[in-house]
Amino acid sequence: MGNGLKVAVIGGGSSYTPELIEGFIQRHESFPVSKIVLVDIPEGRHKLAIVGALAQRMVEKSGLPISIELTLDRRAALEGADFVSTQMRVGQLEARGWDESIPVKYGMLGQETTGAGGMMKALRTIPVLLDICKDMEELCPDAWLLNFTNPAGMVTEAILNHSRIRSIGLCNSPIAAYKWLSSLYNVPIDRIYCEFAGLNHLHWISRIEIDGESKLEELLDRQSSYSASNVPQLAWNDTLMRELGAIPSYYLKYFYLHREMVEEGKAAAARGENRAATVKRLEEELFEIYKQPELAEKPKQLEQRGGAYYSEAAVKLMHSIYNNTGDIQTLNVRNGGTLDFLPDDAAIEVNCVVTSEGASPVHVKRVPEGTKGLIHAVKTYESLAIEAAITGSKEKALLALASHPLTDSANVAEALLEEMLERNKAYLPRFFKV
Amino acid sequence: MGNGLKVAVIGGGSSYTPELIEGFIQRHESFPVSKIVLVDIPEGRHKLAIVGALAQRMVEKSGLPISIELTLDRRAALEGADFVSTQMRVGQLEARGWDESIPVKYGMLGQETTGAGGMMKALRTIPVLLDICKDMEELCPDAWLLNFTNPAGMVTEAILNHSRIRSIGLCNSPIAAYKWLSSLYNVPIDRIYCEFAGLNHLHWISRIEIDGESKLEELLDRQSSYSASNVPQLAWNDTLMRELGAIPSYYLKYFYLHREMVEEGKAAAARGENRAATVKRLEEELFEIYKQPELAEKPKQLEQRGGAYYSEAAVKLMHSIYNNTGDIQTLNVRNGGTLDFLPDDAAIEVNCVVTSEGASPVHVKRVPEGTKGLIHAVKTYESLAIEAAITGSKEKALLALASHPLTDSANVAEALLEEMLERNKAYLPRFFKV
Amino acid sequence: MGNGLKVAVIGGGSSYTPELIEGFIQRHESFPVSKIVLVDIPEGRHKLAIVGALAQRMVEKSGLPISIELTLDRRAALEGADFVSTQMRVGQLEARGWDESIPVKYGMLGQETTGAGGMMKALRTIPVLLDICKDMEELCPDAWLLNFTNPAGMVTEAILNHSRIRSIGLCNSPIAAYKWLSSLYNVPIDRIYCEFAGLNHLHWISRIEIDGESKLEELLDRQSSYSASNVPQLAWNDTLMRELGAIPSYYLKYFYLHREMVEEGKAAAARGENRAATVKRLEEELFEIYKQPELAEKPKQLEQRGGAYYSEAAVKLMHSIYNNTGDIQTLNVRNGGTLDFLPDDAAIEVNCVVTSEGASPVHVKRVPEGTKGLIHAVKTYESLAIEAAITGSKEKALLALASHPLTDSANVAEALLEEMLERNKAYLPRFFKV
Amino acid sequence: MGNGLKVAVIGGGSSYTPELIEGFIQRHESFPVSKIVLVDIPEGRHKLAIVGALAQRMVEKSGLPISIELTLDRRAALEGADFVSTQMRVGQLEARGWDESIPVKYGMLGQETTGAGGMMKALRTIPVLLDICKDMEELCPDAWLLNFTNPAGMVTEAILNHSRIRSIGLCNSPIAAYKWLSSLYNVPIDRIYCEFAGLNHLHWISRIEIDGESKLEELLDRQSSYSASNVPQLAWNDTLMRELGAIPSYYLKYFYLHREMVEEGKAAAARGENRAATVKRLEEELFEIYKQPELAEKPKQLEQRGGAYYSEAAVKLMHSIYNNTGDIQTLNVRNGGTLDFLPDDAAIEVNCVVTSEGASPVHVKRVPEGTKGLIHAVKTYESLAIEAAITGSKEKALLALASHPLTDSANVAEALLEEMLERNKAYLPRFFKV
Repeated sequence: MGNGLKVAVIGGGSSYTPELIEGFIQRHESFPVSKIVLVDIPEGRHKLAIVGALAQRMVEKSGLPISIELTLDRRAALEGADFVSTQMRVGQLEARGWDESIPVKYGMLGQETTGAGGMMKALRTIPVLLDICKDMEELCPDAWLLNFTNPAGMVTEAILNHSRIRSIGLCNSPIAAYKWLSSLYNVPIDRIYCEFAGLNHLHWISRIEIDGESKLEELLDRQSSYSASNVPQLAWNDTLMRELGAIPSYYLKYFYLHREMVEEGKAAAARGENRAATVKRLEEELFEIYKQPELAEKPKQLEQRGGAYYSEAAVKLMHSIYNNTGDIQTLNVRNGGTLDFLPDDAAIEVNCVVTSEGASPVHVKRVPEGTKGLIHAVKTYESLAIEAAITGSKEKALLALASHPLTDSANVAEALLEEMLERNKAYLPRFFKV
Repeated sequence: MGNGLKVAVIGGGSSYTPELIEGFIQRHESFPVSKIVLVDIPEGRHKLAIVGALAQRMVEKSGLPISIELTLDRRAALEGADFVSTQMRVGQLEARGWDESIPVKYGMLGQETTGAGGMMKALRTIPVLLDICKDMEELCPDAWLLNFTNPAGMVTEAILNHSRIRSIGLCNSPIAAYKWLSSLYNVPIDRIYCEFAGLNHLHWISRIEIDGESKLEELLDRQSSYSASNVPQLAWNDTLMRELGAIPSYYLKYFYLHREMVEEGKAAAARGENRAATVKRLEEELFEIYKQPELAEKPKQLEQRGGAYYSEAAVKLMHSIYNNTGDIQTLNVRNGGTLDFLPDDAAIEVNCVVTSEGASPVHVKRVPEGTKGLIHAVKTYESLAIEAAITGSKEKALLALASHPLTDSANVAEALLEEMLERNKAYLPRFFKV
Repeated sequence: MGNGLKVAVIGGGSSYTPELIEGFIQRHESFPVSKIVLVDIPEGRHKLAIVGALAQRMVEKSGLPISIELTLDRRAALEGADFVSTQMRVGQLEARGWDESIPVKYGMLGQETTGAGGMMKALRTIPVLLDICKDMEELCPDAWLLNFTNPAGMVTEAILNHSRIRSIGLCNSPIAAYKWLSSLYNVPIDRIYCEFAGLNHLHWISRIEIDGESKLEELLDRQSSYSASNVPQLAWNDTLMRELGAIPSYYLKYFYLHREMVEEGKAAAARGENRAATVKRLEEELFEIYKQPELAEKPKQLEQRGGAYYSEAAVKLMHSIYNNTGDIQTLNVRNGGTLDFLPDDAAIEVNCVVTSEGASPVHVKRVPEGTKGLIHAVKTYESLAIEAAITGSKEKALLALASHPLTDSANVAEALLEEMLERNKAYLPRFFKV
Repeated sequence: MGNGLKVAVIGGGSSYTPELIEGFIQRHESFPVSKIVLVDIPEGRHKLAIVGALAQRMVEKSGLPISIELTLDRRAALEGADFVSTQMRVGQLEARGWDESIPVKYGMLGQETTGAGGMMKALRTIPVLLDICKDMEELCPDAWLLNFTNPAGMVTEAILNHSRIRSIGLCNSPIAAYKWLSSLYNVPIDRIYCEFAGLNHLHWISRIEIDGESKLEELLDRQSSYSASNVPQLAWNDTLMRELGAIPSYYLKYFYLHREMVEEGKAAAARGENRAATVKRLEEELFEIYKQPELAEKPKQLEQRGGAYYSEAAVKLMHSIYNNTGDIQTLNVRNGGTLDFLPDDAAIEVNCVVTSEGASPVHVKRVPEGTKGLIHAVKTYESLAIEAAITGSKEKALLALASHPLTDSANVAEALLEEMLERNKAYLPRFFKV
């Protein structure tokens, strides 16, 4: 890598982009980006123009020698890139709406990263990511691909096993856990050490230390937990929590409190609520703010979006790879024996040491006994769904869905799948070959 | 082992005992049993007398030098035994009724070998079996313990890890699969080869060959499957079945068709049906037949009971151990790396070579990809429940139940558990210490 | 497979062939071979004619409907075959002479199946076997390849990983162990059970039972052991033997008594002795006997050859595959987790269940702790040497040789390798590309 | 841990102690040691007094609030300690002389950390270390034991498996590798990243990066390598080195150039040379310097001792544990699946992340294929030797020695062992029970 680094941001018109730009500006001294290309699809042209203009103003204000380019030509964006980050939504918010609403009609969970909705998102997204990788193999074969497109674990596993591109998956929730602890104990993050074990959106924090002293017991006792605005705020079961001996990701409420979550989903549907629509409105408000010509920094309102810290995680990771820092980050990487009950080529989410060779998992001291079966069950679903996404096999998709721990009937799953595939037809060319 | 073998049958007053006696008579030449002790608890005294008298008549008719003894003194029965078999029901049919009815009130499956009901049965049964093992360590330390007390996989795992007694768990369903195939293709069993992989009541048959030719594909296509009278007769989902690429145990309907099974259970409860009561009536009818003084053989009606072939499996296994035959049987044994994603000390149900050293698992050629997660999820539940049974920890029992794939809410599980523990109080001394 | 089975015997002019023919005749009822094709290379034409004529007389005497064909056309021999067996020596006895004599000059062991000599044999042989497999993929893709060409473990591993042909490797030494025990205890073989663990020519027998009773302790104490005429008859170290807790293959004397073996080799060389020449003379004597026109059965003298029982093992294996017997044989097969410290795709020598799908390893109850390191060290050498054989890389061959536990200097190994490669030039086209 | 840390140094009279003291002084701000107790055995009273006085002068010069105590009472030294470090030599230099000279008489390698000599050192040392651990369990159960007593890997494995004390083993050679690279490329150490894989004194460096760029290829080509004054300076075999694809520890010359090393040992013995005597003389010279009353710092001459950087490694490790730094160090720790072909409870030497919970191994990206067999072979020897040390079994010791890759005859090993045990009688109470 030279000193003038080129970064391509796929899905550059995303509302998260200003955070990314802020990160590049703040770390410029040790991570000298000289060119940032924001690329999007034609349907995102309008948002790209707004975000691009804000990015331009931010860079200008910083006085740094960084150029911002906007384009709809993905191949031009990738050519010669050192880092590529992806933050996209195939089918946009409309498709998210289907993921969240259709399962509810069948008495199942409607959620965009797990269950039937999560699978549909994977089926739409994985082929697009693999296309990007194919372009990268030709245009920037040594670049790093940082993926934070959801479902991030599955997308990463697909890339690791079906492409030669070096890729790491990341998520904002590990950083969110650190922020939560930092605020709870009023200590800076660098005095906190957490050990994560599991998969993306399915991890447990099995060790929490501040200045080397364990805080896990008291955290389990006082029933505090980290949470996020995009997951319904149900209380955990206290007995379970203490016996589990680890802090579960807030996404695990979909599993341990499945019945309540399904009821919540039905009730919300009955009230006419719609998370996709809410997000859409929030985004439109953000873009109104971005348009203000005097704005030249990341606006505060961005943090209230569910995905806060995503970009912070991404810039931190690029910085560590570039500088061979050897620091520890929680990432989605190839298992390679770290969780010895999962296949070597599965993607897992664990603490890793980051060097210029990428991310190496750190030995996990303790995987709570009660978590292994659930991790494995979800991983079986994930691997089958990836295979379905690549082959376009409806039968494989049914097997994946029927193997998901939140599916309670193969017959219902088959009917639901039929409707969802049909609805998503435009985004599933491998399933509807001519 | 000498030539006059002693076999102790714990739960000897069971309606299955005549089948066992028949097996000993038929194989007497190569498996020379000279003394059979039937032992039962005081509450079973009446049934023991009836069954014992029938056994006595059967032996007399055979003209073989076998003595039958009846006793309520377990230690006397065990002393110097070469083989011990167990077929008991702690809490008798009344407790089975609780296992089947209480979960239904909470919207969950009521079944005696899996889910909440299966866990309660394990909590009642495991300490009793470990007590028997403790007696055996003193009175017949080299004897083999053949366990067909349900949940057979969990009970076997508990014994393997908490006792020095050599033990093997067995179930009638592998033999039932062979009988099904033998009848379907009209060929004798010794021309059929099946490969089983999984856990007790949670296996898949991944290879089926007759005279070395695979029949799996056509069996998956023609939607035939083996079944049992004690599992509701729902049709499988055809697409799933074909894609799975293996014949699932009929117990797997509780998983793949969970919603339908729960509905069925609610409907049956609404109709006032009760499987435990049905079984009780069947047993009473059998005992009426057993009482007939002219009866001196196993009556045909016994085969209609759910547990047909149990005793056949047990006698066959004792025979192979005694004769060091090296034949293959499907048994519940220590994993030891055979299913590489499960702990070494987990009990699994696979094909084994039986010699005088016991049962050694045969390498499993193919574990269908879609099954691993589910196997692991149930194993996690099983291991936690065993720990709960041994420690008497209510919290551990909740963690076990909340980790079961058929539990959809930790909160509901907690309420249900509370009621079930209370109801089973008399049989759970470790949970209700004074 | 139809009822008229075709077997192709590559290296059909071998002195072992009459044993094979005898086996086919004896088992004809349950293993109905109708055509046996003996194929050899032009240099073996003369021996092929002699052996072929004897085979013809043996078949005639039996009165069975078996035809014997002789050919130098390997492709014709393979076409439509059901089983293929190989028993060849690339470079014939001359090359064996090099394997045995050159290392001695460098102060190293001269032996044809391990160390430098064994590696050279592997380098000559593996490419020829892979060529045969390529022909088979075209001409008889469903045939079974039974390999007893040495080094049998390495050749088998090469085939398993570089060909689609189904292949099993076998050796006479497991059968020799059973014969030894049968004679020692005067009991028929079917009452004996041995558990083997390790690699070809590097196994340990960790369990020995007669009628289910362990004989291991007394065998270790009385210092008896099985042996073979082709391995120098040095006494074992008694203390080591008892502490090892398993009966080692006689080939392990090359490891545990390496210094003595090297001295023996030097002394024999000084006396002008030469194992290859001795074998040559023995073979010539055998062929004189084979020529006798009145001879129509396997002559007794054949058993005195080092490789006695090889063909017995091969016919038994073919018979079990054809009849889907499910019996146990000790074979060289894919590891697949059976020895959990070796790669999955390594060939190992263990007890297997034989069915029409081939050979499935049986779980090994006990791998003596003291053996794992040595097994792994030799396997590392084997895998590297296979890679060298396939790529023709001199550097890889040096790494393989330097990694062999019997090599005590990388520098000496390099000089020795240089001379051996040069001498074997005619048989190493991959190392000497034009 | 409070702010006034207590460190106990067992073998405090060692010539290395001034380096340790220097380390505590330099890092005092972030690692606030308030009390250092130097403890030694009565035979070391004289050296302890000299070193202790120097330590006292060093501390005084620093002006820091650190107290130095000298004692012969080990229990008093341990009481309430936060960290314990050990640097001892059971049997002192006289025993080292035996380790180095006796094997040579039998045609074997005489070396104090591997082969027969290394095993004798392990047999003498392990019981003493386990005694220290027993005291610690009583007197300072939460203290960390940092072991740099050789053979460090074996001693660490013994402690990890036979004591509840938290312990980490360390060696100076990983730091020596960094120093070598730093000097070769003229860059500070923090810009260098090395990945180590293997065991203590048996590691390979499989990745070397400076500023994230790999230097491995050029280092293998230019035949430079890191070395140490205590290992004979033989040149590596260049072909092997390149093909190995990793930089081996200089101790690996004992394996890859075994014949040359044995010859070297014989020649040195013939010349009357004696490494133990040389070390003794060097030590005496050092102590003369230490006595100088004006000396109040670590003298330069100390670095020329073979064990340079040992204490630097120890202080760095204590500092990281205390401060929960999460940095990477190369240490001897429990395997736990990191090298998947070794037992979980084996000690291995790999990169670890150090936090206040101790050292967690980092996933090893690449274990060169050619190294696994050798690593496993030495580990088999190590585990057997540890068992021999603990049980005092001569037979187990023979099995260990005969399983060592550098032993070429079980018979010779038995004779050699007999002599060595006899000579070491005073230090082997478990082998010579009354």
